[in-house]
Amino acid sequence: MNQEYKVGIIMGSKSDLPVMQDAADILTELGVAFEITVVSAHRTPDRLFDYAKTAAIRGLKVIIAGAGGAAHLPGMVASLTHLPVIGVPVKSSNSIDGWDSVLSILQMPNGIPVATVALNASKNAGLLAAQILSTADENLCQALINYKQELAQKVLDSANDMQAEGLPIGYNA
Amino acid sequence: MNQEYKVGIIMGSKSDLPVMQDAADILTELGVAFEITVVSAHRTPDRLFDYAKTAAIRGLKVIIAGAGGAAHLPGMVASLTHLPVIGVPVKSSNSIDGWDSVLSILQMPNGIPVATVALNASKNAGLLAAQILSTADENLCQALINYKQELAQKVLDSANDMQAEGLPIGYNA
Amino acid sequence: MNQEYKVGIIMGSKSDLPVMQDAADILTELGVAFEITVVSAHRTPDRLFDYAKTAAIRGLKVIIAGAGGAAHLPGMVASLTHLPVIGVPVKSSNSIDGWDSVLSILQMPNGIPVATVALNASKNAGLLAAQILSTADENLCQALINYKQELAQKVLDSANDMQAEGLPIGYNA
Amino acid sequence: MNQEYKVGIIMGSKSDLPVMQDAADILTELGVAFEITVVSAHRTPDRLFDYAKTAAIRGLKVIIAGAGGAAHLPGMVASLTHLPVIGVPVKSSNSIDGWDSVLSILQMPNGIPVATVALNASKNAGLLAAQILSTADENLCQALINYKQELAQKVLDSANDMQAEGLPIGYNA
Amino acid sequence: MNQEYKVGIIMGSKSDLPVMQDAADILTELGVAFEITVVSAHRTPDRLFDYAKTAAIRGLKVIIAGAGGAAHLPGMVASLTHLPVIGVPVKSSNSIDGWDSVLSILQMPNGIPVATVALNASKNAGLLAAQILSTADENLCQALINYKQELAQKVLDSANDMQAEGLPIGYNA
Amino acid sequence: MNQEYKVGIIMGSKSDLPVMQDAADILTELGVAFEITVVSAHRTPDRLFDYAKTAAIRGLKVIIAGAGGAAHLPGMVASLTHLPVIGVPVKSSNSIDGWDSVLSILQMPNGIPVATVALNASKNAGLLAAQILSTADENLCQALINYKQELAQKVLDSANDMQAEGLPIGYNA
Amino acid sequence: MNQEYKVGIIMGSKSDLPVMQDAADILTELGVAFEITVVSAHRTPDRLFDYAKTAAIRGLKVIIAGAGGAAHLPGMVASLTHLPVIGVPVKSSNSIDGWDSVLSILQMPNGIPVATVALNASKNAGLLAAQILSTADENLCQALINYKQELAQKVLDSANDMQAEGLPIGYNA
Amino acid sequence: MNQEYKVGIIMGSKSDLPVMQDAADILTELGVAFEITVVSAHRTPDRLFDYAKTAAIRGLKVIIAGAGGAAHLPGMVASLTHLPVIGVPVKSSNSIDGWDSVLSILQMPNGIPVATVALNASKNAGLLAAQILSTADENLCQALINYKQELAQKVLDSANDMQAEGLPIGYNA
Repeated sequence: MNQEYKVGIIMGSKSDLPVMQDAADILTELGVAFEITVVSAHRTPDRLFDYAKTAAIRGLKVIIAGAGGAAHLPGMVASLTHLPVIGVPVKSSNSIDGWDSVLSILQMPNGIPVATVALNASKNAGLLAAQILSTADENLCQALINYKQELAQKVLDSANDMQAEGLPIGYNA
Repeated sequence: MNQEYKVGIIMGSKSDLPVMQDAADILTELGVAFEITVVSAHRTPDRLFDYAKTAAIRGLKVIIAGAGGAAHLPGMVASLTHLPVIGVPVKSSNSIDGWDSVLSILQMPNGIPVATVALNASKNAGLLAAQILSTADENLCQALINYKQELAQKVLDSANDMQAEGLPIGYNA
Repeated sequence: MNQEYKVGIIMGSKSDLPVMQDAADILTELGVAFEITVVSAHRTPDRLFDYAKTAAIRGLKVIIAGAGGAAHLPGMVASLTHLPVIGVPVKSSNSIDGWDSVLSILQMPNGIPVATVALNASKNAGLLAAQILSTADENLCQALINYKQELAQKVLDSANDMQAEGLPIGYNA
Repeated sequence: MNQEYKVGIIMGSKSDLPVMQDAADILTELGVAFEITVVSAHRTPDRLFDYAKTAAIRGLKVIIAGAGGAAHLPGMVASLTHLPVIGVPVKSSNSIDGWDSVLSILQMPNGIPVATVALNASKNAGLLAAQILSTADENLCQALINYKQELAQKVLDSANDMQAEGLPIGYNA
Repeated sequence: MNQEYKVGIIMGSKSDLPVMQDAADILTELGVAFEITVVSAHRTPDRLFDYAKTAAIRGLKVIIAGAGGAAHLPGMVASLTHLPVIGVPVKSSNSIDGWDSVLSILQMPNGIPVATVALNASKNAGLLAAQILSTADENLCQALINYKQELAQKVLDSANDMQAEGLPIGYNA
Repeated sequence: MNQEYKVGIIMGSKSDLPVMQDAADILTELGVAFEITVVSAHRTPDRLFDYAKTAAIRGLKVIIAGAGGAAHLPGMVASLTHLPVIGVPVKSSNSIDGWDSVLSILQMPNGIPVATVALNASKNAGLLAAQILSTADENLCQALINYKQELAQKVLDSANDMQAEGLPIGYNA
Repeated sequence: MNQEYKVGIIMGSKSDLPVMQDAADILTELGVAFEITVVSAHRTPDRLFDYAKTAAIRGLKVIIAGAGGAAHLPGMVASLTHLPVIGVPVKSSNSIDGWDSVLSILQMPNGIPVATVALNASKNAGLLAAQILSTADENLCQALINYKQELAQKVLDSANDMQAEGLPIGYNA
Repeated sequence: MNQEYKVGIIMGSKSDLPVMQDAADILTELGVAFEITVVSAHRTPDRLFDYAKTAAIRGLKVIIAGAGGAAHLPGMVASLTHLPVIGVPVKSSNSIDGWDSVLSILQMPNGIPVATVALNASKNAGLLAAQILSTADENLCQALINYKQELAQKVLDSANDMQAEGLPIGYNA
């Protein structure tokens, strides 16, 4: 058992790693300990069951699950644990433009929610996990507030860049 | 254990019964023994696991699974058994026009097929189950051939009805 | 300031109340204190700003925001607070089958997540809020575990009902 | 305050500039003074509020706002000013084929219109802004009439080109 | 010639009148003179041509055109006049959920914009017409500002209603 | 053999008759002789083959085929005859909003065209059949020209009705 | 006036020529005389009117019109002539996956049909034009029958190729 | 007649072979004898009829049919034989994102099922054919069970790879 990990990141296939890495990176940046592995709902259903059923016992507080196509991983994990589960629809190769991933994660029946983020938006999944943990962690609150300020600053910087490039900018807040 | 049942019909909620009844009726008509019950992937995942893992041992040859919305039941059963699984997308109340049910059943990843039929088409699921069993059952073959002839006859009858109603029908095969 | 409320439920119009009431009911059932009011992103942008900016200070831990059509309420609240925001797409009267509500809530850009639930699924929004709070509340964990068991029991009851009605049920877990 | 600018062009991210440049170019061609900058609804909500609330005071007559994904910028600006707001849905990288941008800009509730143009059609946004200003500017009317004649002439030229290339053209208006 | 009318409202069929009446009503409320009639792009193309070509001469400043299905009226009017044209997609009886109306009005090619509003949102078309005219009419500006304040007040009233009905409202701006 | 019929109207099921009757009615109005019957691609494939292969020999010049869901009737007829085939997508009960009917009729591969009309638009199918026959029939040309004039007159009448009802109509062509 | 041309091919922009060339090629192959030019509904509405109104007088029997995006060309031509009009939806650069082109051509209101073919399927438009003309031209009938036989032969050849490449082909018709 | 083949794989065009090869490969891997050829519903309807009508007589037990666009091959084969038919929607070049292929295969009317698999998922079609045959073949059951175990092992291997690459993996089942 690994008490230190607060967030578990799982994905249906190692081929989802390039998308799911963003969740890991933002959690690292925010100082949130996480574990990350492959759990396939369809190819390793026993592993899925065991992972989900032991998640709370192992100390996890939030699970991020990414999958593509008929994406059952987030919903099935949510059916097996009372922990909040964040679903990341992944636009995989034979997906029908991502609609299958989005709908099979989002449209969960009443009783078993999955907190769904945008297509391929695993960075937002990581942020949402941090927001959830921050409801009981003042330091993490502050980290998230700082993160928001950095986002804003980057917009202001790009506005300044456009002005420097000679575009007519009449507005300076 | 109930050796006599060849087909297991399961549905995510008893509210799916009006749709799934058609599968039961056509199997009855064709003389195929079946069992029917509720198994919810999201509300009773343990029941799902046990049902799917014991299906072959209990003598089932085919499973028909109907579900709506983010419909994970057919795909998860398929992940847990080597039996052929037929998926029926059900257009439930909060479904987005049935697209969620269709895509979350149809778009299974390579390795774990679900034989998907049309939206709400549980009658076709029953027929498909009978077709599968008929690959090793000459009597069932004949029943299916007869069924096809009845379908054709009904079309011819309705064509005759239209002619009798005075519509100009120049073609008589 | 009202310290007792943990969850703030807001909606774009009072006409969304029949949908959003489900969130209130499940939170009541789980013993989570909440406030509920109307905040329109488009008709009361100042109220939106003030609500979102003061939410954390007023003691809220999670915000549930429901809206239909071009639904900007959840995303704009998320832009103005570091609290986790749960978005409920509402299928309003002139919505294009709910697709507009779903996509304008779900497809948030990187940096500002909204935890989106299914179309009209405000009950799941309430459950997700409780799950989030339960990451630091053992009693709430237990309430959620109990709730899951009740969900399962209802499925078993309906399976028994079907058997009692004479349907052939070969499987008894 | 910069009285000379009639049109304000804003975009959610500097990465939208290649699309939004077309609006700037056609306004330049038609002799309409404009300002252009980055205002992110989600990353800089305060800047959005201030920009929209001061727009009329600063002398702007029309605002063009482009954004992708869950595109809230045009609608939120429209909620904060009585000026006409033109929305440009941008097909950004993780957009679901542009549907999210289109629907979250177009489907505004009654009371707060956004004049939406086609996906990525910022040139048309610029033309529409000029048309709006031309309702009180005879010179601009004439410029727009001339522009329409040039469009027509280019079609006639391409028809002549096809004839010159040997294609059988029986029609000469 | 009727100099007094500033806005021309046209629709493809008298069956669109229940939808298009909203545009007339809001213009009446805001004190903007308008004319309203039926012009069918497909059944009366000559009338369409004449209407659009004489619109500016007759003193109109803005045209609102509503149509359903393969809705060509707004785009064809826009091709024949330099006036701003507002398109209202109407969800007619055989429309495919309104998608045909929306796309055939919105997706105009570069050079000929149509200011598209939401499905059936003719009230917003009327408001947009007023906003356009207000760019040169201070009284109309003020009327629009007042209208926005009334929208906001109705939201506050409904929030108070909810509180009066006993719902827990912790927030009072 | 019935030499007099120029147009054959077929439908996949007698339940399509309420939709397909419009084709019969307009052909009757225009004085074009037609036959009408049921031919199911899926339930009576032999009848389909025979009907399509003998159509030209029996004197038919155009075939109108209506079907819903996975609608194979128009395309299969087109594969079996060199006659022009007009396809009518029918929005049947379990259709997914008509999309299945439209796409399975419209998206024919190169080499085998089906002239597709709008969803449920069998009146237009009848008109198109008449237009096709009119390419070698001056009287039918004139009937179609007259029909177009009647369409236009009805629009003018409804415009007059609106004026008579007191709506402000500034335009009289 | 050019009496010899039976088919008029028009397109909204010269950029549609690579798609529309297929119609010209198949008509050439079948020996049907055609003219081809650019007519833009939105940029040259007067040319559109004149072209459509003079088409029958100039001797044309069928018109093929291709356009993308909000594609009004086929429908507007159909409103102005009693000739059969074949519409080719073109997937242009800023089209939303072709849906806009398809729906704005296909979904014509009752009274004004457009014979729509598949997305980019201008070859089928040419074949359909030939089929229409063949209703009064025995030689063209024969050419179309021959064309169908060639299509079939190519399939048989490719089946033989696959067998020659060593694939197990048990079926030889 | 070729008694040894149990599965017939057919496709609408040789250009579908790269997709359909996967079905052949998995059947080879599982030791199931199959034949494979081209049968076009639209270009060779006689071949389609003969193939489907003789399939059972020739000893086939299951048919896999792949096609793109308006894909009528699987459904028409199903109309002509009582054998189970598996449909593979192929995303061909001018398909509208695959939706046409999927819907024209999946949405079969009651009475004539097609067991549809995911877009381009011919591997799953092969597996499903093997599952069907395994209902009367113990050796094939075992082969499928082994195949499932290999799928699971590959997931575990990739999880180990990720751990070896230094990712924090707290879970080891």
